Amino acid sequence: MKIAIGLYPGFTALDAIGPYQVLVQIPDAEVVICAEHLGDLADDMGHLHLDIAHTLDDVPTPDVLLVPGGVVTRTLAIPGTPIVEWIRDAHPTTTWTTSVCTGSLLLGAAGVLDGLRATTHWCSLDLLAAHGATATSERVVIDGRVITGAGVSAGIDMALTLVERLAGVEMAQAIQLGIEYDPRPPVDAGSPDKAPPEIRDLVAAVLAEAESAAGVTTAPA
Amino acid sequence: MKIAIGLYPGFTALDAIGPYQVLVQIPDAEVVICAEHLGDLADDMGHLHLDIAHTLDDVPTPDVLLVPGGVVTRTLAIPGTPIVEWIRDAHPTTTWTTSVCTGSLLLGAAGVLDGLRATTHWCSLDLLAAHGATATSERVVIDGRVITGAGVSAGIDMALTLVERLAGVEMAQAIQLGIEYDPRPPVDAGSPDKAPPEIRDLVAAVLAEAESAAGVTTAPA
Repeated sequence: MKIAIGLYPGFTALDAIGPYQVLVQIPDAEVVICAEHLGDLADDMGHLHLDIAHTLDDVPTPDVLLVPGGVVTRTLAIPGTPIVEWIRDAHPTTTWTTSVCTGSLLLGAAGVLDGLRATTHWCSLDLLAAHGATATSERVVIDGRVITGAGVSAGIDMALTLVERLAGVEMAQAIQLGIEYDPRPPVDAGSPDKAPPEIRDLVAAVLAEAESAAGVTTAPA
Repeated sequence: MKIAIGLYPGFTALDAIGPYQVLVQIPDAEVVICAEHLGDLADDMGHLHLDIAHTLDDVPTPDVLLVPGGVVTRTLAIPGTPIVEWIRDAHPTTTWTTSVCTGSLLLGAAGVLDGLRATTHWCSLDLLAAHGATATSERVVIDGRVITGAGVSAGIDMALTLVERLAGVEMAQAIQLGIEYDPRPPVDAGSPDKAPPEIRDLVAAVLAEAESAAGVTTAPA
């Protein structure tokens, strides 16, 4: 079983590494981290650099496809970009096609989400709907053979859900225990419903500013 | 404020990237990922390669020091290894010295934990006690200016606890909301108390085998 995590410059690190840490522990699964080009690839914050050893072309037919999010997805989520073309070409033969956070915008641009329920980061639900999905704010959404996770950290929950489907509940339990995933956030503001309104407005404004800085000015047609 | 995440070959990816994703969002904080050598650095599973741009020597006096865990810590946690020497030299002038998972064994080997309460991965609590700490199974432990987190995923909770101390509770809330950290594991086996006994025994056996494969045969003197 080949699991491909497809990256691009400006991906959000935890979106990819949360699921990586879960999926890489499935026996007999081969996890391949790939991107358009070999060599250095920086995340959206610019302080993490990966050394990419496999191109997207090296992994044309993965059994499981996973794409993370990042502010730059707002500009990449159009037909013709390398990551979207890779998804479009690979999806017909995957067992599962999956995303974390705004990675679902890339799935949408590849035509994967037409008529499906899906999720994304809480700030991007409107944008996801514009890509043909029925957007929902659930943490993990399974529709057909597509699984989407909500923002950033939801990739861990998405990946454990995927492990249940791929290898059974005992494997999901074993991996959860191996990474001691018994979360206890010291604060309780992890969703827009739980956060104080002024914190919610602040985060939405910071993300809008980041989108603006990335040159994103309009929603997709 | 300079935050240094010190790595070594065989680190566990999520131990480092969970906290990275939280800490890198503190305004005015500079997060530096560093290791003994520049260039390629592989994680413990061998499928993630970082491109290291800063050596440990480049960051001798960080304000915040963080080390992740990994099976290899059982062999690295002795005086004289580069990562332990770096911790020993940097600790006297840090504001906070921190670890995730078995990274606490490295803190112990550097003499940082003598007489302090600390935690680690649930499978390594005995080993931590052998390094001079009072080992406890809490998820995040603060003692003096040392903060330790439990296994792998606990790094996210540890880092949010650190943000509260560094930048206030509102900043911790904003970062938690930004990464939508409202965890909902699909299974409930994230601690040895919650997991079925046969799953707990399986995971302990797999980790013991990994330690054996890494050439670890004895606890530290």
